[in-house]
Amino acid sequence: MYPASLQKLIESFRMLPGVGEKTAERYALLISEADETDVREFAQAMLDVREKLTHCRICGNLTESEECEICRNTDRNHRQILVVQSAKDVIAIERTGEYRGVYHVLNGLISTSKGIMPDDLNIDTLVRRASDCDEIILATSATMDGETTAMYLDRLLKDSNPDLLITRIAHGLPSGGMLDYADEITLMHALTDRRKMG
Amino acid sequence: MYPASLQKLIESFRMLPGVGEKTAERYALLISEADETDVREFAQAMLDVREKLTHCRICGNLTESEECEICRNTDRNHRQILVVQSAKDVIAIERTGEYRGVYHVLNGLISTSKGIMPDDLNIDTLVRRASDCDEIILATSATMDGETTAMYLDRLLKDSNPDLLITRIAHGLPSGGMLDYADEITLMHALTDRRKMG
Repeated sequence: MYPASLQKLIESFRMLPGVGEKTAERYALLISEADETDVREFAQAMLDVREKLTHCRICGNLTESEECEICRNTDRNHRQILVVQSAKDVIAIERTGEYRGVYHVLNGLISTSKGIMPDDLNIDTLVRRASDCDEIILATSATMDGETTAMYLDRLLKDSNPDLLITRIAHGLPSGGMLDYADEITLMHALTDRRKMG
Repeated sequence: MYPASLQKLIESFRMLPGVGEKTAERYALLISEADETDVREFAQAMLDVREKLTHCRICGNLTESEECEICRNTDRNHRQILVVQSAKDVIAIERTGEYRGVYHVLNGLISTSKGIMPDDLNIDTLVRRASDCDEIILATSATMDGETTAMYLDRLLKDSNPDLLITRIAHGLPSGGMLDYADEITLMHALTDRRKMG
């Protein structure tokens, strides 16, 4: 019912995660009225991302070169590897400013429900990297798939290098979280992982 | 912190309505992994919309020609004009399949809080069209700005053509709406606009 060009753009917007018909319409209508230079830049940015962006051959993070900036940074501790699901998580950890090691991006999680198996993920290179490092920090999400993946990697890595230190990020009450709003599993973790004060 | 091309795309996505940092990230990351043909088509659709789409010179609706399909359709009743805020509303009414008249798209609503005055809207052409029609249906939203605009247009159009029939779409309980969930203003409208049964 919309003019053809608008209808086509609405369909394109629908490929974005969580975008339904109504939202796609709103987005497309905004584009139809936006500043022409902005729209040109938007379209070009889209093509650039698709063409220039690739995965770092060492850690799997997003990069425009063969190796990502973090892997190329010699000031970082390359013997400490933090394992995450996606490039987004790298940014989240980097924002804390607390971590000086390097990363390994799996680009997914093992998921029986979605049919994602270990072979579909960036795990082979992790096993190779693990043979030459001191600590692997498993920082996958505290979800079912995140835990499954962490357990799988823990066993796999222990088998290949029994002296390796393998850690898991802490689970517990989030900062600002109220005890009576926390679910049972979070509270269970918060209790079992309790730490001595001071 | 992201590679430059990705960062640029994230910023572009943020120009869409209601899209914050996190959502823009998710969208941009999806584009980085999407099928290349899809991304090309997406970028092209964006440019096409910006270049091909214009406002119908008669009613202000979105079109790729000088006059929109509805205004060019001789099977429709051109003496009945339904006034809406935006092209989205035209589609919403068309979907009901009930309306056979034509439209007038204001491309906005009068809003004192946003500083949108009658002169900023597509009102001049409406006054001209009103001189040669039987009924004007004011179908702006049941919001403060929608009501203000409807009242303004009612007075303006009555002044220019005292014999014109000017109507306002009905306000009341939405279909499937529960009485005890409705707000007071909706209930008030539902009561005052009550109709005889059968």
